[in-house]
Amino acid sequence: MTFTAHINVMPLKELLDPQGKAVMSGLKNLGISHVQDVRIGKHITLQIDAATKEEAEKLASDACQKLLANQVMESFEVHIQ
Amino acid sequence: MTFTAHINVMPLKELLDPQGKAVMSGLKNLGISHVQDVRIGKHITLQIDAATKEEAEKLASDACQKLLANQVMESFEVHIQ
Repeated sequence: MTFTAHINVMPLKELLDPQGKAVMSGLKNLGISHVQDVRIGKHITLQIDAATKEEAEKLASDACQKLLANQVMESFEVHIQ
Repeated sequence: MTFTAHINVMPLKELLDPQGKAVMSGLKNLGISHVQDVRIGKHITLQIDAATKEEAEKLASDACQKLLANQVMESFEVHIQ
């Protein structure tokens, strides 16, 4: 069975996010001034062959820990559909 | 009131995603071989000051159309919390 894993990899809250700061000033220059904070990370979708949802979730977490997220600077969350 | 907009900006399905292809071959090299497809986009969170959820959603879509997504190559979805 094929499951879709939706993974968000975001910079840790404690760290500066220069890309987010640049986008926030870009939004202000475009006249969108109600935005207080912007943070930018990655959204990754994996199509996983697995027998159960739990197995798919385990594979996706494994992929995050080994390759997709740098846990020194980033946190990740996994949702399976 | 402050709302959090979660925005996913993904490359259109019809287009090649070279970053995703590179990650897929990386996963295979690490022994994670049950993954059929990988697509990589951006996950953006905005903190928006707005009176209602609808207003926040409108502001977030506006920001996507004007700056965050290139609609020739990317699609976006917005969730407000």
